[in-house]
Amino acid sequence: MSPSILPVDPFDYVVFGGTGDLSLRKLLPALYQRDRDGQLPSAGRIIAVSRTPLTSSDFRAMVGDALRRHVPANEIDPAVWQRFSARIEHASLDATGAAGWPDLAGLLAEGADRVRVFYLATSPELFGPICKRLQEAGLVSERSRVVLEKPIGRDLASARRINDEVGGVFAERQIFRIDHYLGKETVQNLLALRFANSLFEPLWRSGSIDHVQITVAETIGIENRGSYYDRSGALRDMVQNHLLQLLCLVAMEPPLSLDRESVRDEKLKTLRALVPVGIEEVGQKTVRGQYRAGAIAAGPVRGYLDETEISADSTTETFVAIKAELHNWRWAGVPFYLRTGKRLPEKVSEIVIQFRPVPHCIFPADAGEIVPNRLVVRLQPDEHIRLHLMTKDPGPGGLRLRPAALNLSFAETFKHRFPDAYERLLMDVVRGNPTLFMRRDEVEAAWGWTERILDAWALRGDRPKPYTAGTWGPSGAIAMIERDGRTWHDEPGALE
Amino acid sequence: MSPSILPVDPFDYVVFGGTGDLSLRKLLPALYQRDRDGQLPSAGRIIAVSRTPLTSSDFRAMVGDALRRHVPANEIDPAVWQRFSARIEHASLDATGAAGWPDLAGLLAEGADRVRVFYLATSPELFGPICKRLQEAGLVSERSRVVLEKPIGRDLASARRINDEVGGVFAERQIFRIDHYLGKETVQNLLALRFANSLFEPLWRSGSIDHVQITVAETIGIENRGSYYDRSGALRDMVQNHLLQLLCLVAMEPPLSLDRESVRDEKLKTLRALVPVGIEEVGQKTVRGQYRAGAIAAGPVRGYLDETEISADSTTETFVAIKAELHNWRWAGVPFYLRTGKRLPEKVSEIVIQFRPVPHCIFPADAGEIVPNRLVVRLQPDEHIRLHLMTKDPGPGGLRLRPAALNLSFAETFKHRFPDAYERLLMDVVRGNPTLFMRRDEVEAAWGWTERILDAWALRGDRPKPYTAGTWGPSGAIAMIERDGRTWHDEPGALE
Repeated sequence: MSPSILPVDPFDYVVFGGTGDLSLRKLLPALYQRDRDGQLPSAGRIIAVSRTPLTSSDFRAMVGDALRRHVPANEIDPAVWQRFSARIEHASLDATGAAGWPDLAGLLAEGADRVRVFYLATSPELFGPICKRLQEAGLVSERSRVVLEKPIGRDLASARRINDEVGGVFAERQIFRIDHYLGKETVQNLLALRFANSLFEPLWRSGSIDHVQITVAETIGIENRGSYYDRSGALRDMVQNHLLQLLCLVAMEPPLSLDRESVRDEKLKTLRALVPVGIEEVGQKTVRGQYRAGAIAAGPVRGYLDETEISADSTTETFVAIKAELHNWRWAGVPFYLRTGKRLPEKVSEIVIQFRPVPHCIFPADAGEIVPNRLVVRLQPDEHIRLHLMTKDPGPGGLRLRPAALNLSFAETFKHRFPDAYERLLMDVVRGNPTLFMRRDEVEAAWGWTERILDAWALRGDRPKPYTAGTWGPSGAIAMIERDGRTWHDEPGALE
Repeated sequence: MSPSILPVDPFDYVVFGGTGDLSLRKLLPALYQRDRDGQLPSAGRIIAVSRTPLTSSDFRAMVGDALRRHVPANEIDPAVWQRFSARIEHASLDATGAAGWPDLAGLLAEGADRVRVFYLATSPELFGPICKRLQEAGLVSERSRVVLEKPIGRDLASARRINDEVGGVFAERQIFRIDHYLGKETVQNLLALRFANSLFEPLWRSGSIDHVQITVAETIGIENRGSYYDRSGALRDMVQNHLLQLLCLVAMEPPLSLDRESVRDEKLKTLRALVPVGIEEVGQKTVRGQYRAGAIAAGPVRGYLDETEISADSTTETFVAIKAELHNWRWAGVPFYLRTGKRLPEKVSEIVIQFRPVPHCIFPADAGEIVPNRLVVRLQPDEHIRLHLMTKDPGPGGLRLRPAALNLSFAETFKHRFPDAYERLLMDVVRGNPTLFMRRDEVEAAWGWTERILDAWALRGDRPKPYTAGTWGPSGAIAMIERDGRTWHDEPGALE
């Protein structure tokens, strides 16, 4: 137990979709780790809710299996498991019907004075109906909170509808729209770097920064999510939430504080500063792609149109690159290049802040090339922040320059296990701290900007450009940034 | 041999004071290392000149002994030593008389077309007379250069006299006034950091920097240099040259290039921007100290007044601290705190650039103290540059901040032997590159500012404050910086 971690208030965590992939792979392992660290109070229960007729004992066995798969073996402690498994219940329930609700109500009655969290790890169509049922069953009080997983809708209208339905039951301060990217250590370290140092903030603007790149690349295809994905696509699935949230944390003005509204106020302002991409610019500023058969490290893979549940004439994009711009004083003239896709050559999520070149070189020609400074915030697969500087090459042979990368994330220095993003965020819900969650107005502003692009694509009616699985998307994505005299960061496939 | 190091032009290095401490401890080991790295051409001789009647063979044995003491054993290579020792000659000569000069002339006649360097590792009173003799003996040509060791005089008038005398024989472009601090790796790395990165220069001014500290602390006393030191003192011996040169490299404007004059032009401008410290301010802005008996790591030591060759009523300062200021746009309002002394608790030379605190704290009180950023350039005993930042303390317990130090000198990264400052500078003389040497106008500007302080002290007539050997100087030095709400960096003795 870390001495600095105090237990949170007594709680009941009710997970809808409790036997699903997210619950078993992420939520329960995260809660286990929090228990191991001493952060869970003795009065803390986890109630998994699903349609499946399972006893609590069956479900505990299922959780035990999941932990063995998703927690490193040396972090499985029998004493902790005994304590943790005793917290776990399962309630069978029909989310849209009447069955099972009295049982859930009975279970929760035991902890009436606790913080009660309803975690909706379900499809978004169920968010409204579940909330309504919770209300009808008398399970919602002042101390209740609801957590919504993405996607919140598939466009502005459906997002508003969901927000209205959930908002009819829960006050906005009780609603926690989760984006686990915001719980990542490096994302929070970016906040620390920006605002706990006087070094960076004066440079954090168009005068010193040339451009920003945000990449979220996946090697996987659509797995078993074909029917969802085909109605969604990369822009809705990734850009509207994760990439725009990362953009906000890089670009926002310094908030007044880290309190519940200040950060979200600044993120909202940033989203509102995004220059709309309409029909005239969409061909220049966006590139859509769809993967064809190819090969990634693990071997040959089929194309998107050959995946199950995908129609042979689907025009859904599995890759998108966007040149986003902000019209405000700080960022005017600084492009934010965003890209995300499936079946790319590596799994990597990173933010690259590229500084301007030195305005004048005082060094002789034989000193070597001066590479512009770069701050790289890597979220996946390994988390780190690296500052790329030029330094003197040691030695007596005159002043020769050499690029060097400094690690600002200090994983080695601190010898700490890097907690999973969900660990932090699940506890923030119990603590009632929504700073790292999305507010309704943010989600809707992000959908507003995203929908404009979707509309422009629909009006143009062109198909996504094909790219071979295992490459960095269609050549147009490379052309888009190269036209501006820039290059995607560390892109092995750039010249293929 | 490093592939990037090409041999310099053929040369004859004539070292006056060739059997002295500097020659055996620094110059010859540095030339040996350059030979080992393949930088010395086959036509390259080292001619040590001294009063002592020594054969070249005797002297070679003396050099062999010196290398065994001053070069790490694993860097002594018999093949290199054989090559190196064959370069070495000794000439006995009376610097102020007529004896021996024809022999030296005879030796040099063999290498008439080579770069000829006269290195004057002698007392400064001999600089003029030796140059005159060199001229009379017909040994000075267009391809000759002269290297002068500090001190260049003991005040402005004597510095001018020496510069006039040497300048009567050598053109200014042939005169290399050496300050080995400028040959240090970290000092050159400071230039690389400032001018090969766009990150630092926008911050390098009063808007972002709170103050600068330059410390050159020695544990030794006056050794066997009592009669010189007692006529000199810490201000003349260290501040006028080393500390002001370091101040110049920190504070100067970006030079046009690293060519022979641009850096020196900027250093001169910086020296001219130093605010004079006259009789009115000298009590507030300077602190003089003189050590009393005390103890350092090695054991008890006697006081300055009990040292040999020191009179019991000496008022020479063995410690000085100065609050220096620059009146120019960049540095107005940013103090440069300088301090140097003998018999201090540790041997350390460093520059501390202290950035301003963050203007506003957005973090909650329990996030921890935000320590202002600091760039520390350490020249001795170990060379490194460290950037002190605030970062997020890894872990799920909310956003806690933690100071961390980044190493920007990369000794570990590059796995390179750090060459001694003399290695670089001795080769710069042969290459005819005076960028890292002091120009006449610089030396005289530095003396002008220094002399004003000496005059003010003399007018006030107060004695230096005593301090116990092994402490950080008189309490007034601490009071001087604390009055400004600041603290000397990493000073173990601050609270004693």
